[in-house]
Amino acid sequence: MNAEIIAVGSEMLTAARIDTNSLYLTEKLNNLGVEVVTKYVVGDDRDRLASTIRLAASNSQIVLLSGGLGPTEDDVTRDALALSIDRRQIFHQEICDQIEQRFHKMGRRMAETNKRQAFLLEGAEMLPNDHGTAPGQWIEDSGCVFVLLPGPPHELKAMFERQCLSRLTRIVPKQFIETLIFRVAGMGEADLDQTISPVYKKYSNPATTVLAHNGDIQVHLRARCKTQAEALALLAEVGGQVEALLGDRIYSRNGDSLEVTVGAMLRKQRATIAVAESATAGALADRITSVAGASDYFVGGFITYTRAMKTEMLGVDPELLQRFGPVSKEVAEAMAQGARRRTGASYALSITGNAGPATDGGQAPVGMMYIGLASPSGVTSTHRQFLGDRARIRAFAGQMALDFLRRSLP
Amino acid sequence: MNAEIIAVGSEMLTAARIDTNSLYLTEKLNNLGVEVVTKYVVGDDRDRLASTIRLAASNSQIVLLSGGLGPTEDDVTRDALALSIDRRQIFHQEICDQIEQRFHKMGRRMAETNKRQAFLLEGAEMLPNDHGTAPGQWIEDSGCVFVLLPGPPHELKAMFERQCLSRLTRIVPKQFIETLIFRVAGMGEADLDQTISPVYKKYSNPATTVLAHNGDIQVHLRARCKTQAEALALLAEVGGQVEALLGDRIYSRNGDSLEVTVGAMLRKQRATIAVAESATAGALADRITSVAGASDYFVGGFITYTRAMKTEMLGVDPELLQRFGPVSKEVAEAMAQGARRRTGASYALSITGNAGPATDGGQAPVGMMYIGLASPSGVTSTHRQFLGDRARIRAFAGQMALDFLRRSLP
Repeated sequence: MNAEIIAVGSEMLTAARIDTNSLYLTEKLNNLGVEVVTKYVVGDDRDRLASTIRLAASNSQIVLLSGGLGPTEDDVTRDALALSIDRRQIFHQEICDQIEQRFHKMGRRMAETNKRQAFLLEGAEMLPNDHGTAPGQWIEDSGCVFVLLPGPPHELKAMFERQCLSRLTRIVPKQFIETLIFRVAGMGEADLDQTISPVYKKYSNPATTVLAHNGDIQVHLRARCKTQAEALALLAEVGGQVEALLGDRIYSRNGDSLEVTVGAMLRKQRATIAVAESATAGALADRITSVAGASDYFVGGFITYTRAMKTEMLGVDPELLQRFGPVSKEVAEAMAQGARRRTGASYALSITGNAGPATDGGQAPVGMMYIGLASPSGVTSTHRQFLGDRARIRAFAGQMALDFLRRSLP
Repeated sequence: MNAEIIAVGSEMLTAARIDTNSLYLTEKLNNLGVEVVTKYVVGDDRDRLASTIRLAASNSQIVLLSGGLGPTEDDVTRDALALSIDRRQIFHQEICDQIEQRFHKMGRRMAETNKRQAFLLEGAEMLPNDHGTAPGQWIEDSGCVFVLLPGPPHELKAMFERQCLSRLTRIVPKQFIETLIFRVAGMGEADLDQTISPVYKKYSNPATTVLAHNGDIQVHLRARCKTQAEALALLAEVGGQVEALLGDRIYSRNGDSLEVTVGAMLRKQRATIAVAESATAGALADRITSVAGASDYFVGGFITYTRAMKTEMLGVDPELLQRFGPVSKEVAEAMAQGARRRTGASYALSITGNAGPATDGGQAPVGMMYIGLASPSGVTSTHRQFLGDRARIRAFAGQMALDFLRRSLP
């Protein structure tokens, strides 16, 4: 069963505001086994909203609308729905009385315009609003359910929980939904897709989604079945094939981020880590310590932005810097060794590179990044050339460094 | 002139993701005098997207689509637009060669599927993508302009700035829109609004928007007039009143971020800066160095997550740590002094605090943050108690440190 969500209100069409009610509604609908297939944000324009409602109803069996139920002429949701499904609106004195009482309780008089809120579409059920004046409405028409909800998030959530969940459960076919998430590092999105699409393309259930952000890829498999056992079996079948193809490029199977995964590995070994950062200047340490409890394994770091600081803070030989340049395998390894020696940490991870935008005196091309890792068994390094702007190159370098550490940990 | 924005991608229909490209696009369109009247999020479904495109084109003269231009079969935007305006798609060898070269530069081979990205709709102009493989497209059809943009925000922004702004300027009726942006630190959003709303509420032109994020507030005034002189005069009138009320809490008047503002002050003085971070663990240095050219004034930093590292790296007296605890005015000042001494920088900024989630052995409450600043004229410090989660507290602390530096610089 599919749903569409329409947020109504011209303020949601400015550069400063975003509709977030739809995130809450999506979560609740997904939990019932309902997919959201289109979301809309429409301004306070009755005719435009009416055509949007018509398109939504032609695609899905559930159409949720939020906002536009207030008392002013800008509040067009009731009129737009009445227009699009061709129903009259009927004044209900008892609703009007309730609204009047609400104002009375707050010590205020109801404005004449609030009477607009006492109209229901013919055949609609009224959904009481415990936190505001605007009642919601529940209307079924030609096999489609329309739900009118208030715009303010706390009013919408309370009404949805108390009035809509049980009604929806009655009309949604019973099913079980299980999700499996693989997180992957060390390969590009297109590469990954080419590798695994021959498997997941064979199945429409589970549904597969691939998400990539700054070198971090997530593969989501979501199975919908009549029983939970069936859903889990389906995930095991397809997930097993995906896993076989991706191998150790998968770093987590439970949604954990790379920094959480690496942190757990370090904690398990009772090992500690320090960092030495040049091009990323603190971003790697920031990421490692974004995990609560990182103080169990993270001891500290050095941000050595200049050649002099590489020598001062980490003891990198000035001759090495002179001979190979600061963006080199040799300097990356010396930085890692220096950080390990000076902190006494089990591991030290270093990054040196050129994040741009200018080339570094012609020595290292923009995007060239070297990663060093000093460990109890010696020092190693790796390098890669990234493309993109400064922020992207820095993010990719941090991802690569954490993944290098993950693969190197015993 | 009106526009519609369609974000394409099933991942944008989950409870975990939201389309934010439309906020950027809305700002740019509004600056040209174009209003956004409907926004859509559509999944990777060709036919549904095609009907959405038809509805959008029936309402507005500009339809922007973001996402769905990747190489996989899930990427349906090209096909959906071809279907909805009934145009063929044509393979362009030269585009294919460019994509292949891009992979070559990264030392990788182009996957066969990437060839899908070398197709353009008949009559479309190709919009080069400087940051990714997917080229954009610009197509005019029956009085409507369709623009296909890539989904990743940095790719979309670069393409829109470089390729779309000038093209849109040619088709949008001339009016003058001038914007004045005040950026403010050191006060809360509600405080600020209470302070300046008596002024801006008197004017519908310029339109005023207040945006707050992690302690950083922006006040945007946007004037639309028949002549540029009129728009500028209006901004001067209203902006002058706002400025008088906010005083030195305004840190920039041209949109520059706090790190850019502080960096420019340091550069002008030919001064240098180092940092010593505990609770923020690299986030402050990361922010300072996110500005291209930061190597002119940023020399390096120490991330001292443990007590031992504060002593080892910065020479903080263990007795001080014992007596006042690591989250204290005394330790913040000693950290700043140590960082300044060890790097030789003109200024050193330190942060020590408890970002949570657990209290630090009962000593410092979650959210307590001390900032130290060592300068040629001695050492000073400040502190504040923040509320919220770990990420929010760390972000507020970095903002507070930069603002403390800004107000302390001669």
